[in-house]
Amino acid sequence: MTNQTSFSLTCPIPISDYPTVQLAHGGGGRLMNQLIERMFGAAFGNPALDARHDGALLEMAGTRLAFTTDSFVVKPRFFPGGDIGSLAIHGTVNDLAMCGARPLYLSAGFVLEEGLAMEELWRIVQSMQAAAAEAGVQIVTGDTKVVDRGKGDGIYINTSGIGLVAEGRTIGPSQVQPGDAVLVSGDIGRHGIAIMAVREGLEFESAIESDSACVAGAVQALFDGGVAVHCLRDMTRGGMASALVEIASTSGRRVHIHETAIPVRQEVRGACEILGLDPLYVANEGRFVAFVAAEDGEKALAILRGHPLGQGAALVGTVGTQSDGLVTMRSAIGATRIVDLLSGEQLPRIC
Amino acid sequence: MTNQTSFSLTCPIPISDYPTVQLAHGGGGRLMNQLIERMFGAAFGNPALDARHDGALLEMAGTRLAFTTDSFVVKPRFFPGGDIGSLAIHGTVNDLAMCGARPLYLSAGFVLEEGLAMEELWRIVQSMQAAAAEAGVQIVTGDTKVVDRGKGDGIYINTSGIGLVAEGRTIGPSQVQPGDAVLVSGDIGRHGIAIMAVREGLEFESAIESDSACVAGAVQALFDGGVAVHCLRDMTRGGMASALVEIASTSGRRVHIHETAIPVRQEVRGACEILGLDPLYVANEGRFVAFVAAEDGEKALAILRGHPLGQGAALVGTVGTQSDGLVTMRSAIGATRIVDLLSGEQLPRIC
Repeated sequence: MTNQTSFSLTCPIPISDYPTVQLAHGGGGRLMNQLIERMFGAAFGNPALDARHDGALLEMAGTRLAFTTDSFVVKPRFFPGGDIGSLAIHGTVNDLAMCGARPLYLSAGFVLEEGLAMEELWRIVQSMQAAAAEAGVQIVTGDTKVVDRGKGDGIYINTSGIGLVAEGRTIGPSQVQPGDAVLVSGDIGRHGIAIMAVREGLEFESAIESDSACVAGAVQALFDGGVAVHCLRDMTRGGMASALVEIASTSGRRVHIHETAIPVRQEVRGACEILGLDPLYVANEGRFVAFVAAEDGEKALAILRGHPLGQGAALVGTVGTQSDGLVTMRSAIGATRIVDLLSGEQLPRIC
Repeated sequence: MTNQTSFSLTCPIPISDYPTVQLAHGGGGRLMNQLIERMFGAAFGNPALDARHDGALLEMAGTRLAFTTDSFVVKPRFFPGGDIGSLAIHGTVNDLAMCGARPLYLSAGFVLEEGLAMEELWRIVQSMQAAAAEAGVQIVTGDTKVVDRGKGDGIYINTSGIGLVAEGRTIGPSQVQPGDAVLVSGDIGRHGIAIMAVREGLEFESAIESDSACVAGAVQALFDGGVAVHCLRDMTRGGMASALVEIASTSGRRVHIHETAIPVRQEVRGACEILGLDPLYVANEGRFVAFVAAEDGEKALAILRGHPLGQGAALVGTVGTQSDGLVTMRSAIGATRIVDLLSGEQLPRIC
């Protein structure tokens, strides 16, 4: 009952600011962070939640587990490179991998809208199973709810997951050290652009496919190669920029990146220009950022590039000695600027 | 990839039967069971899922865990005796307790509709935390998505949970034995009637409150008292009848109950008559059925009645020697009939 004493009848998000929930509260930017910190943090606060990691690290009867949850509301449900079913597996498996865990078991909770075509549900369910089999995880428990027509959008899927964390392994923002090398596992921005292209009816010379994939194997390759991995985060909602800002702010370390080192495919860059988006903030679903010990940077890069899901990996920055929790970026023309969260969101319902 | 070979392009729910998802597919009755077995079972099939229990029993690095998930879409969000927040905690904690587990950690996944009042979200979040604290569980990880106005219904909540299962304890349909005593932990039907009364604008002399509560303490009392507990199930969607039919059919045992022994409050019985409902099928959210060894029936009854959440407990039946997986009920006038699942659902969006 310890947390009850901190309850207040006053809503921690002032009505004068936001009387109601906005789309931007789910967008991975500053408003979402405020909602999570001020409301969920205030009510539920505990060490596991406060670590602000992709999942909770738990110790149960001597076994170290990671536990994570994600709901998927992506629109459209089918897109180049994936669908809501495969995405729901990749998203949660990747969150477990980001905790340094071996993903093992998933739950699946469906909120179906009355009128969803049975054939479509079957396609999605098959896609989930194919992705789960490929990731080596089992869907062991589930739940199905149906809501009336007009109270959903076909299908929403929640997946929660459990993974096993190796003895002695601690991965998270608290482990970030000055000097750490910062890597990204591949070119950024494809998932968000693939979704936007479908929504906006854009056509490119070749279709841009989502990068949606399970990255647990690439992470395991780093561990197997003896790399001192300090922190991992998948670059989903809010993109690479938001992942780095969250790690910098939680760890209190300065992260410095080089714009020219960040891998972005030409067609993604072009689409971003047309759509007025910054690729740094565009969502990925099969890309992660890794903070590793300074001396392991080159080794980590070689290992990632040798893995099918890390072929486009790049060293993009380092951790500085300042304790200001900021992300700074040196641009192509040599100017340095602070990278911040977007206040709202670029792309609603991207995952 | 073992399950992929069983995939078929043909949807396992024939289009001629149900081309689209119906409300009844989420109702806890026969249609929901068909959807789960034919579609989710066919795609995801594995021993943990196939056990058709309230949660999955897993062994991880020598630690025995229960893992479960539930989404909550109840309408209205606030009702006499609870709200969607407390319900989301009770539902998942109770599923863990039904696996014989000590509930420990929950995740919370929110799907918010654009426009939900912040104050209302705050009330729900506080209610979740109060229920979690009372149940002795922590909410350790979460996720927030926002969907556009008109694509949700204010708030849907998924909670998944992990609990610890004591060494050597096995609870589930497979443990049901001929001769077992069948108990219910209290009067039935109040949750469903409380919800319906609000929806239909019914007024009774005294408001009927939902029975929504965490029952883990009452279950623990049975274990502490040395009762040989064989199977437990909370009587949620589909009510007591569906819980018994599922256990009988999964275990292959005959379950025989006595209608006159089933505790139903007078006002619930009255409301059921007005609404044309059978209390046996009305949802509960703080009531469970327990199958215990024949010789422990009376002891279990005394223990439950001594617990605040089992004061209205009753011995309602026994397990027969037939292996037909049926539930039979002897009525007040002495006739015996088969109790079956409803094909659809009595009450949509009850939880």
